[in-house]
Amino acid sequence: MSKKVTPKSIDHSKWYTDVILKADLADYGPVKGTMVIKPYGYSIWTLIKESIDLKLKKTGHSNAYFPLFIPKSFLSKEAEHVEGFAKECAVITHHRLKTDPNSNDLIVDPDSKLEEEVIVRPTSETVIWSMYKKWIQSYRDLPILLNQWANVVRWEMRTRLFLRTTEFLWQEGHTAHSNEIEAKKEAIDILNLYKNVSENIMAIPVLTGIKSEAEKFAGAEITYCIESMMGDKKALQAGTSHYLGQNFAKAFDVKFQTKNNKEDYVYATSWGVSTRLIGSAIMVHGDDKGLRLPPKIAPHQIVIIPIGKSDDDVKKILNFFKEHIKNFKDSGLRVLIDDREDLSPGFKFNEWEMKGVPIRIEVGFRDLNNDQVTIARRDTNKKEVVSISKVNERIHNLIDEIQISLFEQALDFMNSNIFEVSSYEEFKKLMSENKGFIKCGWDGNSKTELIIKEETKATIRCIPFEQNIKNKKCIFSGTPAKFEVIFAKSY
Amino acid sequence: MSKKVTPKSIDHSKWYTDVILKADLADYGPVKGTMVIKPYGYSIWTLIKESIDLKLKKTGHSNAYFPLFIPKSFLSKEAEHVEGFAKECAVITHHRLKTDPNSNDLIVDPDSKLEEEVIVRPTSETVIWSMYKKWIQSYRDLPILLNQWANVVRWEMRTRLFLRTTEFLWQEGHTAHSNEIEAKKEAIDILNLYKNVSENIMAIPVLTGIKSEAEKFAGAEITYCIESMMGDKKALQAGTSHYLGQNFAKAFDVKFQTKNNKEDYVYATSWGVSTRLIGSAIMVHGDDKGLRLPPKIAPHQIVIIPIGKSDDDVKKILNFFKEHIKNFKDSGLRVLIDDREDLSPGFKFNEWEMKGVPIRIEVGFRDLNNDQVTIARRDTNKKEVVSISKVNERIHNLIDEIQISLFEQALDFMNSNIFEVSSYEEFKKLMSENKGFIKCGWDGNSKTELIIKEETKATIRCIPFEQNIKNKKCIFSGTPAKFEVIFAKSY
Repeated sequence: MSKKVTPKSIDHSKWYTDVILKADLADYGPVKGTMVIKPYGYSIWTLIKESIDLKLKKTGHSNAYFPLFIPKSFLSKEAEHVEGFAKECAVITHHRLKTDPNSNDLIVDPDSKLEEEVIVRPTSETVIWSMYKKWIQSYRDLPILLNQWANVVRWEMRTRLFLRTTEFLWQEGHTAHSNEIEAKKEAIDILNLYKNVSENIMAIPVLTGIKSEAEKFAGAEITYCIESMMGDKKALQAGTSHYLGQNFAKAFDVKFQTKNNKEDYVYATSWGVSTRLIGSAIMVHGDDKGLRLPPKIAPHQIVIIPIGKSDDDVKKILNFFKEHIKNFKDSGLRVLIDDREDLSPGFKFNEWEMKGVPIRIEVGFRDLNNDQVTIARRDTNKKEVVSISKVNERIHNLIDEIQISLFEQALDFMNSNIFEVSSYEEFKKLMSENKGFIKCGWDGNSKTELIIKEETKATIRCIPFEQNIKNKKCIFSGTPAKFEVIFAKSY
Repeated sequence: MSKKVTPKSIDHSKWYTDVILKADLADYGPVKGTMVIKPYGYSIWTLIKESIDLKLKKTGHSNAYFPLFIPKSFLSKEAEHVEGFAKECAVITHHRLKTDPNSNDLIVDPDSKLEEEVIVRPTSETVIWSMYKKWIQSYRDLPILLNQWANVVRWEMRTRLFLRTTEFLWQEGHTAHSNEIEAKKEAIDILNLYKNVSENIMAIPVLTGIKSEAEKFAGAEITYCIESMMGDKKALQAGTSHYLGQNFAKAFDVKFQTKNNKEDYVYATSWGVSTRLIGSAIMVHGDDKGLRLPPKIAPHQIVIIPIGKSDDDVKKILNFFKEHIKNFKDSGLRVLIDDREDLSPGFKFNEWEMKGVPIRIEVGFRDLNNDQVTIARRDTNKKEVVSISKVNERIHNLIDEIQISLFEQALDFMNSNIFEVSSYEEFKKLMSENKGFIKCGWDGNSKTELIIKEETKATIRCIPFEQNIKNKKCIFSGTPAKFEVIFAKSY
């Protein structure tokens, strides 16, 4: 395997896969479309997960676990929901294998056919609302603020590591409320939580807004979303939060007694982010040397590479550096010492650059004599020599600087690739050249949206919360704009 | 729903289910045999999980994630493995549903039939070894020490909440080594880790040893296990660690180049514990008032119940107690203040006793005037009045005392219900009366084991590491004992 990745500029898609495989983030599983998340990739996921989990708990949510299996009939209870998911779900029809007496092969035992087929959850609204039906009687039982960390399955035809896999890991929140205002607030609060995680933890700037009818979740009244711009200027939907109204409560007949002794259907939200976030971190921050990880999601924030010719040299160097390593660890930094013997410093540099470690500290004999170390930062590829007395302070500052610098690089990139256009010709030209996002007026008509999609492959990524439609016209129809929207090609 | 549970002595099985439902640990899912783990039960699982995860990481293991789906053909690659799992697995045969044009019902789309059926993992040896085949070439790639936290599915006919459910949560470790000694050491190290978690975290004493041929894991050379005694004196296998030899390496053709430039098959272990552990905690510690949780796995270690007649009273009481609550939390204790307004103190006492909270602190107006609080401990049901100046110290000591007291109660119970018998008649009598575990000689013959099982329902739970067979005879055949073993009825 070549040590280098295909340059981004040559083939972005190949570059993306190369980085994943060479940085040891994931691999292909044996069943088509499945993925193995390798330890390095899983550590990144764990850091993202812990950060979200903490924020969810602080805002009053609890974790629970609902079954993987859903009776087939549940799926059809909500009309839009079944439309959205029936076409891509794994169906269990039998519960036993046996050895074929004729061929000696392992075959499905026809006697084990299930009375009703079972679906592997593509999302858990239906199974959860079948339980809420049992748990909710009165306003006193509300709100219910549950989340689960789980795997879900969508039988996708065209898959791509992290971005679209048959099975993926995610969190899905499902809340139940006694009124619309509270439920809508919940959906928006969660959207802000996602924005916060994306921008402050993953250093990925996002646009926020709502989805058009065509793009919203199957079963939702309103889908709120965060959208980010990848390195190839395509959009990625990084997280969604849905106000479900009373749709699922009606589908599962979940009523409650109000404070005024009346009866009403329960109001709901659901929301989720997945391992797809790792894909976005790769595409937003990565370069031709590989990953660039924001410190907050880097399994190793600092790698220390002693440069000596013998074991003895390395020991002396590490000894010299011992106290600082302890200081780093005590202050909560994730530090790795790469003292592997049979590998050259150059090889190690490349490997940790590929894996996106934010800071590399090089310590050689000359450094030892001069009371100094060399610090290399992954975000800028710049090196600096720092006196040993200042290294602790410098490292702590750098951790913050790199986190911010990666965010700002991504923000500049996004902002400089969002265009306002004045004609549909211009729109088509920009899209055909993959120039980025387009902000423009839209007449609110689903047909317009569909034609634009067919002609340019661009979809409405979101209707931003901040609207400015004064004097704006629909980019396609020329009629007065109902909304200002963001169009883009997307993952 | 009645507030009380069926007494343990009347119907242990009903008592068990009552406690789970009334303590709000879990509920039945819609597909037969599935379970919903409710927030309180899930919090207990999270505490167990965090404790195991930390210990695994400290001993050099990393987490990864492998696919839920396994090609059917993989299952038959290891002869014993397929025997063990083919009879109870969920089989996916199709990947799409559609609306039947005739009936308008949702049906399985026959055009979506899979070329090869897919199995939902009952355990992940096969899928993981298919990946190790790609990842392992040389001794330099070894050892691989991976663990995953995942859901697995076994299509059980007779299910029981937490103990045996169609789907359950667990961790499964899968390691690869260059030699037998290292692999066996790994399997035993993990067994000791499980013993440690069971005894020191969950306060459940265990017997350790190896499984007989009949009871070992399908595909293992040796299965090491921890076995514990439930409140009804039946045994529960709480965790297993398998030395797999080269069985899976041979099945998946995983060879490596040794240091001496030769070729050998890789040596393996696998090991797991599951949400079943929660079932054992209920059955070992619970009483007729409900759960009794060891502090280390209690979501709330302390519940504070202010006893006042008005909101104002409660506020004064909480204010008085504020500093202590802060102290508790700052020192890492999990404290809950139950200031719900429309519930009586008696109701709250019962509820938190049912949920097994180790320590209850009652604070009323009289306490406020006397600078004291009343502390009730769940393990002994005893109350004590403690001066407010000493409450912090007392609570910290109590946390340790209760953890130890629950372990010692369980240890005494187990030890006083293990019997050595001198005749098979006596064996049968003790078993028919459900008296407990029997320690006796066994001739090592699988037929003997089978007859005893058929006649008494007792199986060999383990062959303890410490053996004393001098002058011992097989309890059934009367021939010289090959092993000293533990027989019991089990879950």
